[in-house]
Amino acid sequence: MAALQNDTFLRALNREATPYTPVWMMRQAGRYLPEYRESRKTAGSFLDLCKNPHFATEVTLQPLDRYPLLDASILFSDILTLPDAMGLGLYFEEGEGPKFERTLREEAEIKALHVPDMAKLQYVFDAVTQIRKTINGRVPLIGFSGSPWTLATYMVEGKGGTDFLNTKKMAYARPDLLHHILETNTQTVIQYLNAQIAAGAQAVMIFDSWGGALSHNAYIEFSLNYMQKIVAGLTKNAEGKQVPSIVFTKGGALWLEAQANIGADALGLDWTVDIGQARKRVGNQAALQGNLDPAILLSTPEAIEKEVASILASYGHGHGHVFNLGHGITQWTPPENAAAMLEAVRKHSQQYHQ
Amino acid sequence: MAALQNDTFLRALNREATPYTPVWMMRQAGRYLPEYRESRKTAGSFLDLCKNPHFATEVTLQPLDRYPLLDASILFSDILTLPDAMGLGLYFEEGEGPKFERTLREEAEIKALHVPDMAKLQYVFDAVTQIRKTINGRVPLIGFSGSPWTLATYMVEGKGGTDFLNTKKMAYARPDLLHHILETNTQTVIQYLNAQIAAGAQAVMIFDSWGGALSHNAYIEFSLNYMQKIVAGLTKNAEGKQVPSIVFTKGGALWLEAQANIGADALGLDWTVDIGQARKRVGNQAALQGNLDPAILLSTPEAIEKEVASILASYGHGHGHVFNLGHGITQWTPPENAAAMLEAVRKHSQQYHQ
Repeated sequence: MAALQNDTFLRALNREATPYTPVWMMRQAGRYLPEYRESRKTAGSFLDLCKNPHFATEVTLQPLDRYPLLDASILFSDILTLPDAMGLGLYFEEGEGPKFERTLREEAEIKALHVPDMAKLQYVFDAVTQIRKTINGRVPLIGFSGSPWTLATYMVEGKGGTDFLNTKKMAYARPDLLHHILETNTQTVIQYLNAQIAAGAQAVMIFDSWGGALSHNAYIEFSLNYMQKIVAGLTKNAEGKQVPSIVFTKGGALWLEAQANIGADALGLDWTVDIGQARKRVGNQAALQGNLDPAILLSTPEAIEKEVASILASYGHGHGHVFNLGHGITQWTPPENAAAMLEAVRKHSQQYHQ
Repeated sequence: MAALQNDTFLRALNREATPYTPVWMMRQAGRYLPEYRESRKTAGSFLDLCKNPHFATEVTLQPLDRYPLLDASILFSDILTLPDAMGLGLYFEEGEGPKFERTLREEAEIKALHVPDMAKLQYVFDAVTQIRKTINGRVPLIGFSGSPWTLATYMVEGKGGTDFLNTKKMAYARPDLLHHILETNTQTVIQYLNAQIAAGAQAVMIFDSWGGALSHNAYIEFSLNYMQKIVAGLTKNAEGKQVPSIVFTKGGALWLEAQANIGADALGLDWTVDIGQARKRVGNQAALQGNLDPAILLSTPEAIEKEVASILASYGHGHGHVFNLGHGITQWTPPENAAAMLEAVRKHSQQYHQ
């Protein structure tokens, strides 16, 4: 693999000095880019795209080619590749979110759940290696997975973004069953992320998209404890180095103190929390990644620059901040507004790194 | 009006001594009750029910008749009566949330928005008076309104529960237009709540259902500041007394310190925050109302009792807590599980009030 030319992202995750605040965007390879929409035309469904390393490489590289100010890339994939490999039958309906053919609610089916053969996910690891080769050292490549809790919500509900009533009912009425799902997911995620690291991922991120739906105690018990286990189970890469980990619970900023204790190198922040206050609460235990509201990218370059400057000022002097959106970029973002954000980060952040 | 026989709810809002923790449930008159579903059969649509004081009285009283342990009642109505009175054309489609025929996005239409004639909402004030008479002093009656920001999201998006991209785009690209909507909503809410107080409401609650979608700074600017104005604009009731106010931002527990400063007597909590930590952060500035996850009511009486006891223990000794759910009760709640919650609150709370 080629030597890394831009290590600002990795240095920031390790809270080491950087000349500016590095930046990337969640879902940066996505529908807001005309070149991505073009690739989708020939590649078929979203799932086909994920399962084809050639296309995954093509679209992962698209934002890097368009935006030279990006400091990291992320594997083009989906958190639902795991429940898919576990046999739940993932499918996407046009204009709707992901769904599963089967849901996990019956005791017998839950107890039959097991860690899938990683060979079923070889397409993911092949994509990681191919992307690493193609990026050729320009910026680091991030691998990722959903959190055990977030994966469980999809597996129990059969879809995302609900009020999680079936999963929560299980959490309170039959916690033993939910813990069996979560433990299975945890062992699966550990194998999955370690295989991505072996294939070339230079950092890994755990997306706990629905952890914010829980109460404080339930979050610790059903989400955070399992993410802590995953972080502890990450193995070294081919060069014998531990790669940095990022844990992101959307809607989870109330619980930053608890998150800071699980051993992750960085914590993701959505846009609800003031990043300066988050930094005070987390202290020296982790770097922070975030936290611009992606809706702001629908406004004007002037408004975007003002908000970027405000976040950088709130974080203040010193290192350990990776600039990002607080959630995935929306498909209605004008690509020039994403450029305005990246330029504003570079322009306004250097003063805080002197 | 009859003398009040059970003032524990009002005393708790004022942080005065009570023999136990008073309790009510958001959306306690609702679809989980068979008697409510029966009333709906003859009354027509949800909106018809809201606009008919006779039916609003009937369903407001239903949970009180079923659950003698309830310590408060709340006007049966909807936060969207205001945009409806403002001419946006509210309608409900079967199986979907509320929608509006018109959306407010064009400058000319926004500037034409004005405070509606309160005579259009006379049905609400008539319902308040009729409910007060029918309750006959058993428990206090709460009046309510949506917050200016929450109402604005429905007015701009035309529906609820989205990612609020149009409203947020306006907030950042044309804050002057959004502030015009918010200021108009604020003056409308002040008149609306004061008319409810004049009609007999013994406490008022402001529901900021979507404030949690904002960033810290945007929440202060576009939601909290306007709720502060409303609290300051509340007038005394017919007996010359100030009625207590409750402000509830769902998903807003990150910002409790700021909420504690706006002069509200009590703050609502959803279930994400530990109530003991919330109490420490709010101090003596306000009472707290919450915070059981309504999903727990789908589990078992044993699990419900355990969670109720855990919340009461976290709040600890002393007064100033009104027990409630962290959001409206779901329609799938078995009515006997709601009873189990109410019994657990009474059983476990008395020790903390000695």
